[in-house]
Amino acid sequence: MARVYNFSAGPAVLPEEVLETAAAEMLDYQGSGMSVMEMSHRGKVYDGIIKQAEADLRSLMDIPDNYKVLFLQGGGSTQFSMVPMNLMKNRKAAYIVTGTWAKKAWQEAAKYGESVKIASSEDRNFAYIPDCSDLDIPEDADYVYICHNNTIYGTVFHELPNTKGHDLVADISSDFLAGPLDVSRFGLLFGGVQKNVGPAGVTIAIIREDLIREDVLPGTPTMLTYKTHADADSLYNTPPCYSIYICGLVFKWLKKMGGLSVMQARNEIKAKLLYDYLDESSLFKGTVDAKDRSLMNVPFVTGDKDLDAKFVKEAEAQGFVSLKGHRSVGGMRASIYNAMPVEGVQKLVQFMKKFETENR
Amino acid sequence: MARVYNFSAGPAVLPEEVLETAAAEMLDYQGSGMSVMEMSHRGKVYDGIIKQAEADLRSLMDIPDNYKVLFLQGGGSTQFSMVPMNLMKNRKAAYIVTGTWAKKAWQEAAKYGESVKIASSEDRNFAYIPDCSDLDIPEDADYVYICHNNTIYGTVFHELPNTKGHDLVADISSDFLAGPLDVSRFGLLFGGVQKNVGPAGVTIAIIREDLIREDVLPGTPTMLTYKTHADADSLYNTPPCYSIYICGLVFKWLKKMGGLSVMQARNEIKAKLLYDYLDESSLFKGTVDAKDRSLMNVPFVTGDKDLDAKFVKEAEAQGFVSLKGHRSVGGMRASIYNAMPVEGVQKLVQFMKKFETENR
Repeated sequence: MARVYNFSAGPAVLPEEVLETAAAEMLDYQGSGMSVMEMSHRGKVYDGIIKQAEADLRSLMDIPDNYKVLFLQGGGSTQFSMVPMNLMKNRKAAYIVTGTWAKKAWQEAAKYGESVKIASSEDRNFAYIPDCSDLDIPEDADYVYICHNNTIYGTVFHELPNTKGHDLVADISSDFLAGPLDVSRFGLLFGGVQKNVGPAGVTIAIIREDLIREDVLPGTPTMLTYKTHADADSLYNTPPCYSIYICGLVFKWLKKMGGLSVMQARNEIKAKLLYDYLDESSLFKGTVDAKDRSLMNVPFVTGDKDLDAKFVKEAEAQGFVSLKGHRSVGGMRASIYNAMPVEGVQKLVQFMKKFETENR
Repeated sequence: MARVYNFSAGPAVLPEEVLETAAAEMLDYQGSGMSVMEMSHRGKVYDGIIKQAEADLRSLMDIPDNYKVLFLQGGGSTQFSMVPMNLMKNRKAAYIVTGTWAKKAWQEAAKYGESVKIASSEDRNFAYIPDCSDLDIPEDADYVYICHNNTIYGTVFHELPNTKGHDLVADISSDFLAGPLDVSRFGLLFGGVQKNVGPAGVTIAIIREDLIREDVLPGTPTMLTYKTHADADSLYNTPPCYSIYICGLVFKWLKKMGGLSVMQARNEIKAKLLYDYLDESSLFKGTVDAKDRSLMNVPFVTGDKDLDAKFVKEAEAQGFVSLKGHRSVGGMRASIYNAMPVEGVQKLVQFMKKFETENR
C-alpha cells in the first residue's frame, strides 16, 4: 500500500525523508556499527546526536542563551505536576482554561496550592480564546498558565495574554515549531513532541534559568525537578535516546525547509485552503470563532452525525486517515502539522467538494 | 562498516532481526500506509500492537492474572519516587542496598517516609550480595526493596531475600527477561527496558492488583499514580508508542528463541565462557564474589589502569565496543544481554587470551 494522508492529531505524520533516513541508519548509524537504539547515552556518538539536536532547536527557535533546553519524559501530563512543584513558590498560580488540557493542568495544580482560574472559554465548549488583555491576576501568583494551541478544539492564542509582569508558562505541544515564537516572552515553554515534532516519548522544556529552582516543593521527585535535568544536560538518567534522535532529524529537515518563518507561511497556506472551503461550503462548517482558528488542528462538522460518519469512512477508503473528530467536539478534525504536504490538504479539499456534491 | 559486538551496559545491543523488521516497516507498518511513529495511540492498528506486546510479555513471564502490566515513562529513577508515593501507606519501607541504584532508591524514599536500610554491601564496594535470609525488618514496613541485578557492580540476587511476609519490590532493569522469574513472589517489579529489552524510554511495571491504591500520598502527581495507568490500560496519555512497538518485536523474538528458560540456559553458557576464563587468567580477574555473579554484567580488571585502558582501546579497534567499566569499579565491564550472540562472547574471550599473551 502507498503512504496515506495522515490527519491524526498525534502521534502524527512525520516527514517522509526523516523516516527514510531512520530506516537507512537503523542497523548502522553512520559507520558506528550500531543502531542509535543500541548506543550508550554516555558515549561519544550519542553525545554528538543530542548536542546537535539541541543546537539545531536553539537555532530554529532562536532560543536566548539564558534559557535551558531539557529533553524530558512523561508528556505534557507530567508537566501539569512538574510546573507547580517547581514554580509555585507562593503556592498560587493563575490558569487560563481554553480546553481539555488546560483544564487538566489547572486541576492538577490544585494539589500543590491555589490554582486560580482567571479566564475560561468553557461556556461555549472552548470554541474561542477569551479576551486576555486585562485579566484579574493575583499579585502574588507565581505564573500565568496557558495552553497555546488547543488540539481538541482547534483554537490558538494569536496574541499572548497580558500577564501584567507575571511569568508566562505555556504548553505548546500541538504547535511546537509551527512558526516563530518569541521565547523571551515566556518563563517556561514545554511540549510533548508527538504532534508536530517527533515520536511520542519526549517532552521538551525550554526554561529561563532563574526559574530553575533548588527550593522546589517538599516531596518533589528528583526526576520531576527541572534542576536535576538542567544540571546534567538532560543526561541525569537514560533519556529516550532514539526518539530524541528522530526529533533531531526533524530539526534538520525544518532547517533545510527554510526554518520556522517558511513553515509558518506554508502552514498558513494549508490552513487557508481548508478554512476558505469551510467558509464557502453549504455542507461542512468549522466549529470555532474565525479569529481564533488554529493553523494546526481544524475541526469541522456537517451537523448530521450519520453524514459525519459516512464522510470519515469514505475518506479513509480514499487514503485520508484519522479524520474522526474528538468526542468532545464530534464530527471531523484535520490535523495539518508541519509534515503534512500542501498537496495532502489540496486533495482533502477536493475530496470534500466531491462529497458535498454527492451528499447535498 | 560491519556491525560491532556491543557490550554496552545500556542502551544496549538489540537482536539484529528486530532492527531489520523495524527498518523494513519504517514507512509502512503492515499495509497501514504509516510508520508506527505516526499512528494515533487510540487507533485500531496501534491498539493491536500494544495489546499484543502485553500478551506476549505475559506469556513469556507467565504473569498471573492478578498482576497488571503497565507501560510507563521516566526510567527506574522515576520509580524510585513512584514506589514510595504509591506504596508507603505506613510511611515506612525497608531497603537492601547492593549498589548505586538501590542506594538512590533508598535515598529518594526518605522524602516520603522512613526509609530503613536493612542490609548493605557498601563495605566492600558492593562486590557481593549480603545474606538476606534473616534480616531485621520493621513489622510495619510497607515493603522490602531490592535491585535484583546490579548493572554497575555485576552482582545478582540468585536467591530472593526472606521478606518475612512483606511485599517485595524489585528493580529488574538489567536482567529483565534474562530468565524465568516467579512473579508471584513479588508485589511489584519494574524495569527500564533499555538494557535487556528495548530502546530507552519505556519503563514496564508489573504490579499485583491489591497494591494499586487510590489512597496514595498527598501530592502524588496523577502521572505518578499506578492507578491512573492501570485504569487506562497504559493509555491515560500518549505512551512512548514506537519504543513499545520495538519491545513487542523483542518479545516475539524471545518467543521464537524458545522463551525465557532457553534464554537463561544461553545466558549461562555465555557467562560461563567469560567467568571460566577470568578464573584461569593470570592477567584479568573478576571483581565480585563468585557466588553472586551476574549473568548480564561482568566487570573485570587487570589491576593496572594503563593496561586496562590499552585493552579497551585495542578491543574497540577490533570491533568489541563499550567495554570500559563504570567509574565506580574501574577496569572493564562486558554486558552480555539476551541479544549478545554466544559468538560475540567467544570472540571476546579469544581476544582477551591473545591480549594476555601479548601483555604478560
